[in-house]
Amino acid sequence: MTKVIISCAVTGSIHTPSMSPHLPVTAAEIAESALGAAEAGAAIVHLHARNPQDGRPDQSPEAFEPFLKVIKQASDVVVNLTTGGSPYMSVEERVRPAAVWKPEVASLNMGSMNFGLFPMLKRYKSFQHDWEPAMLEGSHDLVFRNSFKDIRYALETLNPTATRYEFECYDTSHLHNLHYFWSEGLVQAPLFIQTCFGLLGGIGAHPEEVLHMKRTADRLFGDNYRWSVLGAGASQMKVAAQAAAMGGHVRVGLEDNLWLDKGVLAPTNAAQVTRVRKILEGLGLDIASPAEARQILALKGGDNVGF
Amino acid sequence: MTKVIISCAVTGSIHTPSMSPHLPVTAAEIAESALGAAEAGAAIVHLHARNPQDGRPDQSPEAFEPFLKVIKQASDVVVNLTTGGSPYMSVEERVRPAAVWKPEVASLNMGSMNFGLFPMLKRYKSFQHDWEPAMLEGSHDLVFRNSFKDIRYALETLNPTATRYEFECYDTSHLHNLHYFWSEGLVQAPLFIQTCFGLLGGIGAHPEEVLHMKRTADRLFGDNYRWSVLGAGASQMKVAAQAAAMGGHVRVGLEDNLWLDKGVLAPTNAAQVTRVRKILEGLGLDIASPAEARQILALKGGDNVGF
Amino acid sequence: MTKVIISCAVTGSIHTPSMSPHLPVTAAEIAESALGAAEAGAAIVHLHARNPQDGRPDQSPEAFEPFLKVIKQASDVVVNLTTGGSPYMSVEERVRPAAVWKPEVASLNMGSMNFGLFPMLKRYKSFQHDWEPAMLEGSHDLVFRNSFKDIRYALETLNPTATRYEFECYDTSHLHNLHYFWSEGLVQAPLFIQTCFGLLGGIGAHPEEVLHMKRTADRLFGDNYRWSVLGAGASQMKVAAQAAAMGGHVRVGLEDNLWLDKGVLAPTNAAQVTRVRKILEGLGLDIASPAEARQILALKGGDNVGF
Amino acid sequence: MTKVIISCAVTGSIHTPSMSPHLPVTAAEIAESALGAAEAGAAIVHLHARNPQDGRPDQSPEAFEPFLKVIKQASDVVVNLTTGGSPYMSVEERVRPAAVWKPEVASLNMGSMNFGLFPMLKRYKSFQHDWEPAMLEGSHDLVFRNSFKDIRYALETLNPTATRYEFECYDTSHLHNLHYFWSEGLVQAPLFIQTCFGLLGGIGAHPEEVLHMKRTADRLFGDNYRWSVLGAGASQMKVAAQAAAMGGHVRVGLEDNLWLDKGVLAPTNAAQVTRVRKILEGLGLDIASPAEARQILALKGGDNVGF
Ligand SMILES: [Zn+2]
Ligand SMILES: [Zn+2]
Ligand SMILES: [Zn+2]
Ligand SMILES: [Zn+2]
Repeated sequence: MTKVIISCAVTGSIHTPSMSPHLPVTAAEIAESALGAAEAGAAIVHLHARNPQDGRPDQSPEAFEPFLKVIKQASDVVVNLTTGGSPYMSVEERVRPAAVWKPEVASLNMGSMNFGLFPMLKRYKSFQHDWEPAMLEGSHDLVFRNSFKDIRYALETLNPTATRYEFECYDTSHLHNLHYFWSEGLVQAPLFIQTCFGLLGGIGAHPEEVLHMKRTADRLFGDNYRWSVLGAGASQMKVAAQAAAMGGHVRVGLEDNLWLDKGVLAPTNAAQVTRVRKILEGLGLDIASPAEARQILALKGGDNVGF
Repeated sequence: MTKVIISCAVTGSIHTPSMSPHLPVTAAEIAESALGAAEAGAAIVHLHARNPQDGRPDQSPEAFEPFLKVIKQASDVVVNLTTGGSPYMSVEERVRPAAVWKPEVASLNMGSMNFGLFPMLKRYKSFQHDWEPAMLEGSHDLVFRNSFKDIRYALETLNPTATRYEFECYDTSHLHNLHYFWSEGLVQAPLFIQTCFGLLGGIGAHPEEVLHMKRTADRLFGDNYRWSVLGAGASQMKVAAQAAAMGGHVRVGLEDNLWLDKGVLAPTNAAQVTRVRKILEGLGLDIASPAEARQILALKGGDNVGF
Repeated sequence: MTKVIISCAVTGSIHTPSMSPHLPVTAAEIAESALGAAEAGAAIVHLHARNPQDGRPDQSPEAFEPFLKVIKQASDVVVNLTTGGSPYMSVEERVRPAAVWKPEVASLNMGSMNFGLFPMLKRYKSFQHDWEPAMLEGSHDLVFRNSFKDIRYALETLNPTATRYEFECYDTSHLHNLHYFWSEGLVQAPLFIQTCFGLLGGIGAHPEEVLHMKRTADRLFGDNYRWSVLGAGASQMKVAAQAAAMGGHVRVGLEDNLWLDKGVLAPTNAAQVTRVRKILEGLGLDIASPAEARQILALKGGDNVGF
Repeated sequence: MTKVIISCAVTGSIHTPSMSPHLPVTAAEIAESALGAAEAGAAIVHLHARNPQDGRPDQSPEAFEPFLKVIKQASDVVVNLTTGGSPYMSVEERVRPAAVWKPEVASLNMGSMNFGLFPMLKRYKSFQHDWEPAMLEGSHDLVFRNSFKDIRYALETLNPTATRYEFECYDTSHLHNLHYFWSEGLVQAPLFIQTCFGLLGGIGAHPEEVLHMKRTADRLFGDNYRWSVLGAGASQMKVAAQAAAMGGHVRVGLEDNLWLDKGVLAPTNAAQVTRVRKILEGLGLDIASPAEARQILALKGGDNVGF
């Protein structure tokens, strides 16, 4: 049986520093948290960068450099760089870090959608930085733009670097969009499909919805894909357990969920990795090492990156 | 048992004049085709306007006026005005005709999405008007924008007119977005939900996908909605038959599909209405009259419109 | 696209003469009704025999002879003989007519189950024959016995005659049982699977259940089967429409449903065939002739039967 | 959130002593293993008895007495007595232990089915007792008989004792059968429904099948039931994880599966309880105590049993 790849999304761009003191912000924090996750069993770390002063998402290639060097030096974990960046950014801006650093994996969002972060405004009374509530409030009018042309731009920019993709699919249509690019020959099997559940603007996190995405991907791609899931917020472990029981890989991390239990903030990314391992071990499943993840996903190898 | 509402979408904005000589373009053609559909059994006609010279979508309120008057004079069919307009337009422009004419029903798109019309370029060699291939080609970069703020704008503009909505849902997320507005109290039951299948950028038209949308709507809205379907292109009658067998209402018309059979263009909108009636009659189902549709959907009545 | 095979189950053993004056009982009635169904478009007639005096199911080979001769003489319709007989009979008794007459198709029940006919007692006040209420009442304790050994007995008896099968599957487990025999090499593709909905003791007739059976068969058999459906009672046309929209074949007939519309008894088997044709025509689907059905199901031909 | 009830089925009647040295056979072994499971976290123990000499299923009430006394003395775990016994027994014989000992819970099989144990013959070369291979071989012709009348007999015998039920449902039809008895008023909410996956003769253990049973039960029973699952053999933990992620209760134990990991026999029932707890803890779910299980299932209390 295939081993299970744990991806850990260390910081993302959705949550803000005021929501959790444990959200990694500086390059040092991101590096340390990523390495902790790898140590705990994550084979892949999915990385965003932030402005070290105020925690704002920073998609400049330079912002990624310090933690990339540290992580590469300390671990053979697979590095996955976001091209999602923040939904407020242009696709050119979003693709730049991956284009410069040529990681083994880059995330790629497979469709346009609303991105409703504003429900989080109800949960937090005060914020350290003005940009935080402004960003959440702005999501009322936020369209995360990933047109066919945008996606093609990302593929044509990154394909020459032999970077492969974590295709982030937030609803059925994103799978069909991916199928279009697959039919066009712009993406190659094995496709690493990250189905994403529970964010307002995307599909929900009900078990029917998780199975629906799997069933649709099976129909469209047969054996040509590797399935992974992420559940936002409180659905994180439920979605992971359901998917793991069905043969899927799992993503955890503070990008997707700040919590460990009801009312208990996750102290580290590693804590969530450790938690999902309990489920996998209960299922009798083995955890993939970075080397095994490279094989499962047909990656180019940690020695072929640009950092 | 509830009777089945047949909606007919007479011309839309996706297909272009070169694709079928039967596509209604002028106000007279639109009126005639709408009345033919009503005569054939449609209880609701969903209407767009076009520039009479070149067939380009025209969302100015004046473009709607001539056929609205003719239709109202000749028939008690329920009039449903698009607020989708064309995906290239701003929401303010799209909402204007419904704001001015205050129809019983206005369509409302429940989320942002890619709108991939470009596959049609492969099927047509030449076009009568330059705008036609340009519009299709442009869809590579087309994001049909319906942010939460956009939708709220439409609702706040139209709610005071007592217009009700045909909520067009092209994927699971659109149902969740609708649920958000329902939770906020901005929309009222019975919700008329048009689930839309088979357009690139939205969910596909596989029977699993049709049932998935129904199942999700059942879970989110219980008895508070009335379900209708439209299948794009060749899926039109299949999607209608599946939904009718499951208790749903159906939409047909040249906006969604230009064909009657493989290789046979539909000569009129009425021809598709007549065709779907065969399915309904085979099922032993009765067709709703406009009056019955008004009751099922709790509409304000044809005497309370602005035209 | 494949044409649609309409099977017609002319009389069966579940309904009784008191329930409808139109239920064929004598050999002459069965022959006439079968031929009428064929004339109306059925490519296959599924046949049981009854005692001409009291309508009781009669599984003696001699009871089948008179109508087999008439039907063969008058039509090229495919003849399908029951091995279900009545759930009260032993498998040896049930298999005998097919063993003697070597039809192109014989039905075969793929598992044991309760067979709850007693709810029909509530609908009928009086009966012409004592055996009728006794049979219905007896179904409280009726187990329709089709053990693995029983099914193997039927296959080993009929396989040498080159008869093929209509595998009647009343629930998920019956598909798995069939898969077992397929894995053992006792049955050959293309498998003609009749999924049966809405009888108490089997799966229900909800659209979710219809799709579930299709989905399970797809997973177990891939392209190695041809799918057909029958819906009991009021579900008959709904199940047919859903399946036809999904690429399935359909079975109608008075064995499965005595009605044409709510409160209207079907005057003939042909009336139900005609009714389901409306659905198929609305879908733009072509009806398979007997010759086309023979090709789709890989049958031995009407000249290779034993009557 | 409701806590999760772990049931442990300690020995059953399907597996035989030659298959695992750890299968409890004598009353002392059954008591010890049940208590170990309770200690490990099982709130309910589901119990069969066996002949202490040769391990053959023994459904005489006397066979249950010794371990019932020991268990009651040592633990407040909820005792659940089988009325399935062995599929070879008559319903009268099967119901007797529960009728005599009046436990808080008795299992009840909700339909007739084939029971294909013979595939296990391929895995074992030799047996200690002649009855073992004979029992497996005999399952080719085994119909586990649970007619409507049989089930009614069990209910009418046990309802007066205020015993409640673990309704064992091996396929969709069993849920519909249960719904029939619920409609008739013979069973009362909250119904404790044990959906059983992966035994040849019943539904399989694919995630689609697990969700199908849940979805069907939701449709038939709404909030009137509590859902539990058991997966046979290698599917045990997968089915448990999927169900737990969906809000279900879980059953483990050597009746359902002899193994802990591929190639590793479970040394005790407790080992499987401990294993499933890892999954539940990974999910952040709390385990129900016996007292909490009594509340969730509305049981009569351990002081109201007949032992
Ligand atoms: Zn990210
Ligand atoms: Zn429109
Ligand atoms: Zn029959
Ligand atoms: Zn048991």
